Amino acid sequence: MASSVVNKTAHAFDKGRLDALLNRRFFFAPAFEIYGGVAGLYDYGPPGSSLQANIIAEWRRHFIIEEHMLELDTTIMTPAPVFEASGHVARFADWMVKDTKTGDVLRADHLVKGVLEARLAGDKEARGLAGAAADAEKDAKRKKKSKTAATPSAVKLDDAVVKEYESILAQLDNYSGPELGQLCRKHAITNPDTGNEVGEPQQFNLMFASSIGPTGQHPGYLRPETAQGHFLNFSRLLEFNNGRVPFASAHIGRAFRNEISPRAGLLRVREFTMAEIEHYVDPEDKSHARFGEVRNVRLALLDRHIQAAGETTIQHMTVGEAVDKGVIANATLGYFLARIYLFLVKIGITPERLRFRQHMSNEMAHYAADCWDAEIQNSSGWTECVGCADRAAYDLSVHTARTGHQLVVRQALKEPIVTERAVPEFNKKNFGKTFGKDTAAVQLAVTNMNEEQLLKAKGELEQGSTTVVSTDGREHKLTPDLLSIERKTFKQSIREFTPNVIEPSFGLGRILYILLEHTFWCREQDIERGVLSLPPAVAPTKVLIVPLSAKEEFDPLVQEVSTKLRRAGVFSRVDDSNTSIGKRYARNDELGTPFGLTLDFASVQNRTMTLRERDTTQQLIGDIDAVITIVTELVQGTIDWPAACKRLPAYDGVQAVD
Amino acid sequence: MASSVVNKTAHAFDKGRLDALLNRRFFFAPAFEIYGGVAGLYDYGPPGSSLQANIIAEWRRHFIIEEHMLELDTTIMTPAPVFEASGHVARFADWMVKDTKTGDVLRADHLVKGVLEARLAGDKEARGLAGAAADAEKDAKRKKKSKTAATPSAVKLDDAVVKEYESILAQLDNYSGPELGQLCRKHAITNPDTGNEVGEPQQFNLMFASSIGPTGQHPGYLRPETAQGHFLNFSRLLEFNNGRVPFASAHIGRAFRNEISPRAGLLRVREFTMAEIEHYVDPEDKSHARFGEVRNVRLALLDRHIQAAGETTIQHMTVGEAVDKGVIANATLGYFLARIYLFLVKIGITPERLRFRQHMSNEMAHYAADCWDAEIQNSSGWTECVGCADRAAYDLSVHTARTGHQLVVRQALKEPIVTERAVPEFNKKNFGKTFGKDTAAVQLAVTNMNEEQLLKAKGELEQGSTTVVSTDGREHKLTPDLLSIERKTFKQSIREFTPNVIEPSFGLGRILYILLEHTFWCREQDIERGVLSLPPAVAPTKVLIVPLSAKEEFDPLVQEVSTKLRRAGVFSRVDDSNTSIGKRYARNDELGTPFGLTLDFASVQNRTMTLRERDTTQQLIGDIDAVITIVTELVQGTIDWPAACKRLPAYDGVQAVD
Repeated sequence: MASSVVNKTAHAFDKGRLDALLNRRFFFAPAFEIYGGVAGLYDYGPPGSSLQANIIAEWRRHFIIEEHMLELDTTIMTPAPVFEASGHVARFADWMVKDTKTGDVLRADHLVKGVLEARLAGDKEARGLAGAAADAEKDAKRKKKSKTAATPSAVKLDDAVVKEYESILAQLDNYSGPELGQLCRKHAITNPDTGNEVGEPQQFNLMFASSIGPTGQHPGYLRPETAQGHFLNFSRLLEFNNGRVPFASAHIGRAFRNEISPRAGLLRVREFTMAEIEHYVDPEDKSHARFGEVRNVRLALLDRHIQAAGETTIQHMTVGEAVDKGVIANATLGYFLARIYLFLVKIGITPERLRFRQHMSNEMAHYAADCWDAEIQNSSGWTECVGCADRAAYDLSVHTARTGHQLVVRQALKEPIVTERAVPEFNKKNFGKTFGKDTAAVQLAVTNMNEEQLLKAKGELEQGSTTVVSTDGREHKLTPDLLSIERKTFKQSIREFTPNVIEPSFGLGRILYILLEHTFWCREQDIERGVLSLPPAVAPTKVLIVPLSAKEEFDPLVQEVSTKLRRAGVFSRVDDSNTSIGKRYARNDELGTPFGLTLDFASVQNRTMTLRERDTTQQLIGDIDAVITIVTELVQGTIDWPAACKRLPAYDGVQAVD
Repeated sequence: MASSVVNKTAHAFDKGRLDALLNRRFFFAPAFEIYGGVAGLYDYGPPGSSLQANIIAEWRRHFIIEEHMLELDTTIMTPAPVFEASGHVARFADWMVKDTKTGDVLRADHLVKGVLEARLAGDKEARGLAGAAADAEKDAKRKKKSKTAATPSAVKLDDAVVKEYESILAQLDNYSGPELGQLCRKHAITNPDTGNEVGEPQQFNLMFASSIGPTGQHPGYLRPETAQGHFLNFSRLLEFNNGRVPFASAHIGRAFRNEISPRAGLLRVREFTMAEIEHYVDPEDKSHARFGEVRNVRLALLDRHIQAAGETTIQHMTVGEAVDKGVIANATLGYFLARIYLFLVKIGITPERLRFRQHMSNEMAHYAADCWDAEIQNSSGWTECVGCADRAAYDLSVHTARTGHQLVVRQALKEPIVTERAVPEFNKKNFGKTFGKDTAAVQLAVTNMNEEQLLKAKGELEQGSTTVVSTDGREHKLTPDLLSIERKTFKQSIREFTPNVIEPSFGLGRILYILLEHTFWCREQDIERGVLSLPPAVAPTKVLIVPLSAKEEFDPLVQEVSTKLRRAGVFSRVDDSNTSIGKRYARNDELGTPFGLTLDFASVQNRTMTLRERDTTQQLIGDIDAVITIVTELVQGTIDWPAACKRLPAYDGVQAVD
């Protein structure tokens, strides 16, 4: 009988063990593996597909349903003009460098990062920083194996050099291509695989190109994000929302980026599922009606000023404080940062390993008002998993400019805006007679006058005459028989504006992989027994039904329990394979199945059933229907395990299931 | 108060009205519309996305969960060698013809079909077939508008010509490219848009091409189906299923086909969501454990013999009969045809407009054992929506051959198979001495002998000598000092085989569009009031909550009802817009919302609420909680409307809501 205290940190995290588990149980695997595979492309097997589907379902509940967002499903294959207008054809690129001898292609910023991190690790080793040195070595071995970086050697660096490297790394995302080239030369950074020098950084566009139709005349790209699909449908969405802002559209779908040299598993891939929200707001009012609900959510923030100073110090503050102090640009942006935090923690991300990093000035798109990345710590460091940007009016404006289709909001003003303005009126007959071929030039000089100038001229005309200067520099005298200037009243009843867009954008594959890292551990007694402590909401299978054996006498009960669970909306699986109950549970701990139900001879005789919890391996016993009720509540999250323990007696029967 | 009898056929189906509704309410719309659009690419708006998501959820329940299929999510961007092995690079093509003057590209079979159908329609008109003529004209106008075919003119054809055209149309899918070219010449088929002749049919590969990685050296294609992603992962899937067959994998995902000239809305598109099942069976046993459950399902069948005879007569029979008579090749294929039928009817397809058409010999892939399309009748005729093929061992075999990775099942035999075989044994020394440089040739002649020949030679050797003939025709004498032949016992304990694959493959966009056609109608009293009678399971919104007005006094009740529904798993929306209740209901009839709840002053005072059904517009009234219970059961499909009417009194209050 299990009553062990769970110590999830008894064994240090071992990426090798996790990777072996994920591969063996087919959470995911390299795509086209039997053809030798292709870097950056992965297939999800049954547990991975199911975990992804559950994360998506939770995302849909947390964002789309909760906030009545308008969901879309738009097209991946996109004609070139769309991405010309959006700026992707010109700017959606990374800097790559070529090995000057082999021609191998490397991503410039990843090269600098890998080499400098390896040197810093070598320095730590040389300084004999005990734990650090061991970690560095282990880390380097792993990285070498996966070819992600250079091997450190134990070389001590000057203190000043260490400081410089750390400062470069803190600002890495802020460097331009030429600056990365300078860093390579200044710090003698070469291709770690060959030791050869690398050439000047060059831009490589990350979009996959194709062509549409049989004639080859219509170039197209696979979308690198779903966002343009929202923007192009803005007018339809606005109409669907009865013309009112704010509102949001949402889209879960595939996107493609032809990464230069992807080597980081699911953290950097060429094809991925993303979930994006475009929230449209009045540029003059970026408050959010539900901000009060999240005001007290505490976030770990790394703002742009701290990074620019070469530091990585985290500040903890509530979203309310951050918006009040201007650290986060506005309340809507703050609202979404808090909602992102709540979502990630709900699906099982460790809150202490989640931070929000603000983009630095060069890193941020020129049009963006503010941008934060939700970064989650994992075995590769801190990885961006969600971006959240205030993109201002950029996207809707560029498509309006390119197509002439007005992507704007028109609001009837409750009170028309009444303005008075001075308006010139020309006596055309006299004007022509007086100025002849200069008529148009003189009229233009008048209409170009601003309000102040017109009022001055009006006063002078009332005194007898005024003068204007045409663009060629000549002065012209105007008298009341040529021109009168009157103040008139104007009434505006419609306000027209281009909404601003706040865009939370989620990389679901990265979140999925890091969630697996955060929930993986090995039992204290037995390092071979891996467990994934996935929350019930996202676990691929919620309940495992384990009959003592595959004998027919258990069939009716298995059928009954499984049908009752399905009716209660709980997805279960039966494992009646020919192995011990303990082994079957261990196998399902690896799949993250949170609850197990054992059916044995007592079940047949007394209609009782035991309920086992994955993390503690504790077991309770009760009447079959009572246990179904409890396990349903556990899966739905309305009660937790300690509450269940108060409602059912512990099982300490003879039969060892563990 | 509504108590009208519903007459859904009072107005003839009007595609123009349906299309207008779908566009206006943003079920879907041409993608990149503000950029002028691209043929064959569509975006789904909120109701379309939701309808699609619900159809997918129902599909997942009906197939994946019900049959414990293994779900996958695989990669779209595929390296070229995969599609070279699968045959897609060589053969996944349509025949296109070019207008000899303008160079416009047309799909050859669609051209023949369009022109001959137009001539037949013109013939009917000339013969004065009343209804037919009107229909033909209307049909032609619509088709002309959407540019899908030629305009018929009222020209009477010879009876023999009519018969020939009908026979060609019945066999259209069976013609090769050169045959289509002959048809164009023989029947003077020209480009209907210009009247110009068309050139010889040429093959156009339908896969979108791209290239993977920064060097441009790795050609890739966007998958035109998800199937290869299943096959390449076969070994992992088999292991996941503990090495046992039969089992099935399933995948819902995007696929791409660069159609030559798509002009038929969602029925022919360049990017689409499909749902595919690959069911792996023992080639020696294609029975299905659950066949008994569907044996009595009655299907409308159009077999290959009837089509080859130029006919389109439907035969109605049960799946059991069809399999017993050999009309359907095997029980597993029959099982899936029945399951497909049940699924389509469950989501709302009219059963009378659903038939299964068998592929003809030329049409079917050369390796396939049998193939049936589920075709659904709609305003464009009969459209293939689901294919269901027995692909034999083709796919797994070609990938095994190309990669050397054995995609096979290895079964431990319960009883080892013991066989006796005659085996030649050579006395190598004597053999060499006797035959010198002919040694190898003579040995080969012996080892090439079959069992019967070996036994004959054995007998002759026992008599003194035997002879063999080497491949060059020379005869060689063999004696017992050179060769002995013995019968030996062999024991085989593992059976290895390549499973066969039964593949049901669903085009979800086609099903979605035709479902909208089948469920669309207009109220008898008012042709302007379109209704979509979508079943609750797939309707985008299940319940509409309609407070009498947006006044604050209704807010707590709206909140209460919406929260209680959400807890019961029912997705509702609130419409508190500033218009009459009748108008709000009418607007939601267009979205297919099956149930409405009205909250008025009586609700505030007495906690009562009315429940309105979309198709009948009938209303019931009851206590708020009682109504929530009833509407939850209605949405879950555990009761129907007549049953609800027995549990709650009809509402005949003063307030007209209709």
